Amino acid sequence: MTERSTDLAGAERAYELDRRHVFHSWSAQEKLDPMVVTKAEGAYVWDGAGNRYLDFASQLVFTNLGHQHPKVVRAIQEQAAILCTIAPGTVNDARSEAARLISTHTPDGLDRMFFTNGGADANEHAIRMARLHTGRPKVLSRYRSYHGGTHLAVNVTGDPRRWASDAAADGVVHFFGPFLYRSAFSATTQEEECERALAHLEQVIQLEGPSTIAAILLESIPGTAGIMVPPPGYLRGVRELCDRHGIMFIADEVMSGFGRAGKWFAVEHDDVVPDLMTFAKGVNSGYAPLGGVAIGEPIYRTFAERVYPGGLTYSGHPLACAAAVATIHAMEDEGVVEHAERLGREVLGPGLQALAGKHEWIGEVRGTGAFWALELVSDRATREPLAPYGASSPEMAAILAACKTRGLLPMANFNRIHCVPPLNTSVDEAREGLAILDEALTEARTSAG
Amino acid sequence: MTERSTDLAGAERAYELDRRHVFHSWSAQEKLDPMVVTKAEGAYVWDGAGNRYLDFASQLVFTNLGHQHPKVVRAIQEQAAILCTIAPGTVNDARSEAARLISTHTPDGLDRMFFTNGGADANEHAIRMARLHTGRPKVLSRYRSYHGGTHLAVNVTGDPRRWASDAAADGVVHFFGPFLYRSAFSATTQEEECERALAHLEQVIQLEGPSTIAAILLESIPGTAGIMVPPPGYLRGVRELCDRHGIMFIADEVMSGFGRAGKWFAVEHDDVVPDLMTFAKGVNSGYAPLGGVAIGEPIYRTFAERVYPGGLTYSGHPLACAAAVATIHAMEDEGVVEHAERLGREVLGPGLQALAGKHEWIGEVRGTGAFWALELVSDRATREPLAPYGASSPEMAAILAACKTRGLLPMANFNRIHCVPPLNTSVDEAREGLAILDEALTEARTSAG
Repeated sequence: MTERSTDLAGAERAYELDRRHVFHSWSAQEKLDPMVVTKAEGAYVWDGAGNRYLDFASQLVFTNLGHQHPKVVRAIQEQAAILCTIAPGTVNDARSEAARLISTHTPDGLDRMFFTNGGADANEHAIRMARLHTGRPKVLSRYRSYHGGTHLAVNVTGDPRRWASDAAADGVVHFFGPFLYRSAFSATTQEEECERALAHLEQVIQLEGPSTIAAILLESIPGTAGIMVPPPGYLRGVRELCDRHGIMFIADEVMSGFGRAGKWFAVEHDDVVPDLMTFAKGVNSGYAPLGGVAIGEPIYRTFAERVYPGGLTYSGHPLACAAAVATIHAMEDEGVVEHAERLGREVLGPGLQALAGKHEWIGEVRGTGAFWALELVSDRATREPLAPYGASSPEMAAILAACKTRGLLPMANFNRIHCVPPLNTSVDEAREGLAILDEALTEARTSAG
Repeated sequence: MTERSTDLAGAERAYELDRRHVFHSWSAQEKLDPMVVTKAEGAYVWDGAGNRYLDFASQLVFTNLGHQHPKVVRAIQEQAAILCTIAPGTVNDARSEAARLISTHTPDGLDRMFFTNGGADANEHAIRMARLHTGRPKVLSRYRSYHGGTHLAVNVTGDPRRWASDAAADGVVHFFGPFLYRSAFSATTQEEECERALAHLEQVIQLEGPSTIAAILLESIPGTAGIMVPPPGYLRGVRELCDRHGIMFIADEVMSGFGRAGKWFAVEHDDVVPDLMTFAKGVNSGYAPLGGVAIGEPIYRTFAERVYPGGLTYSGHPLACAAAVATIHAMEDEGVVEHAERLGREVLGPGLQALAGKHEWIGEVRGTGAFWALELVSDRATREPLAPYGASSPEMAAILAACKTRGLLPMANFNRIHCVPPLNTSVDEAREGLAILDEALTEARTSAG
């Protein structure tokens, strides 16, 4: 590390300038006290005072390879030396190779890549493609979902981040997806939940009018909204409904893709091939902004001879694509996806279940790969959440503070703690995180009285 | 340059993979024959066969510093070695410094930066801020404008790129801006055009209902839609109308900002301070994806204690911010904005006017700084465009082909040729470009018979 990153005065100045000039996402600007990060490596970050933290959030669930992977850093530096940027209308070797390499991992037939800057614009463009391909206006998406921050993306979102921007006029219809722990269908088993959720979706399709529906947009596993792994057969059932009614199936793999769920893409858990699949985050571990839409042949054909009316200046940006190429190679070479699968099966899953055996607040443990949620409740019988929907609570704040004091940064959302470390987190690091979480739950529970 | 960039087989492979796996912006995929770019430096790019071209388009009007500026390349490489990425909720020194440095150039009071990935999401978020700040739904924007490719951004757009996605329900109202050459107001002088355009806007405001209008969104100088420099007093008049009716003035400086118009921001030409100002492109010459909204104090105060409901994973990305810091320093140290101003006044302006004296097809020359348009017409009396609105023509294609054969890449849109080279293009390079354009116009005119 250079001097810059361990310089306390530098960290103070960065903090002061941040408070004076940087406007932050999803925040009340003067209720913030953001942490200065001066250094990061693998699964760890360091704050301005030199304290080290284990990052169980992968930042915002995107550093799938951890921080500062030397192969990706080198690839960015080499691409910068050759060609930092070029217009999207040209051909660039880094972009071509990124598209090819991604296509070797996407489900069969999703071989054409439209690159964007992130997940939100990927979903916006996927919806446009589906609308123009089908000639239909509506998009169905589920409650308890997140699809991005731009206007249309936040309107298809099914969590409270939508409320302030709700347009109620963008052709968006929300339905209920499977979530057995808080079933919208009074189901008591996963089989029942799956069956009833599909019957519900079929009714929504019938009542909205199949001929008005361009697409069903679904996170293959909803992410920030709660990591509700769908029951086996659900995504296949959605695929079948889409096929029956000529509806495009858009799988949002922005968070669940690139190994997060222990497979290259989470749709593989149910053997499903969507018509369009969106990605971002893990594609290059966020080392440079990149997202995209993987496009199947029928929709590609629609825009073979007819103009696709959409685009962006930085589509297929060389630096971001070079980072993607290096990231994917590192994931392949180092068996990162397989490691994430084992981490879930052997360490995180059993470890979190063991915590549930000790801590009354844990209502449910769910997840797969490096993608886990603890659903926290004040009462296991009523399943009353430990924080209200759309908000936090003193109990949740106490857990997070106890984690931070001990050097762990999990992700939190309402009444949930998400354990979503980098995919290449070692077994020892994962165990270290679980041990801290254990202590933090004890401390917070004790101080809550 | 490394071997990679001059390797013919490599260029062929990049082309082949592009055609097989890359889906391009704003295009019919199988009607494309994109140019492979293997190398770029300053105002020049090289294709796969080793031919050199003078880039009079700055790619998509974003390489304001030209290609591969060594200081910016080095800054990216150094930041990559320290910290490629970090979540938006943290403090990062590159982000803090970028925000501070930008605020030293934005108009007075626009001191808070919300960083995005590009111009489209910057405009989307600026509209959301204005709507929530005012509690009003509508946005007024002008015909002949472009504000980005996502759903809301393309709906506020006033050129044909909107048509395929027109929602007609997003609270967007289009009005006519000043454009004397094709006046919507039957004006014959700039003064008349300015006065009538403001009277028109005032009527639109009255008839839509001032209390329903959150914002007026305007490119300070419309870019791809035609580089119509507004008459003196127009932007001031819009500011005055906004003040009178409690409407937020959002200046879109994505293309016109960061020196393109011979000032740091084009609003300076009319001494106007908007409430929100969006930027991208020139902020770091596109070396890494970056955009943003510069926010004035009143709107900042709205979100001081109340959550701003919007954000994105890569907001304030360290690599992109480090590139912005280096770009702005290079622009300051090398007098790049002043150079662009002189280039317009002494070379591009007079040079293009001289071409207008020779070539009947040139109906009007307009622009400032490194931001110039030739409006081409088949008949100077009727002002019949040389290509229809929303399309090209054999004549336009012939001009572009003749330019390309001679090693010049201008930007083209419908019946217009835009000369928008990097701001630090030398006088000799600019003259070289004008000479080629002269020959190309002659050749295309001759072959049109």
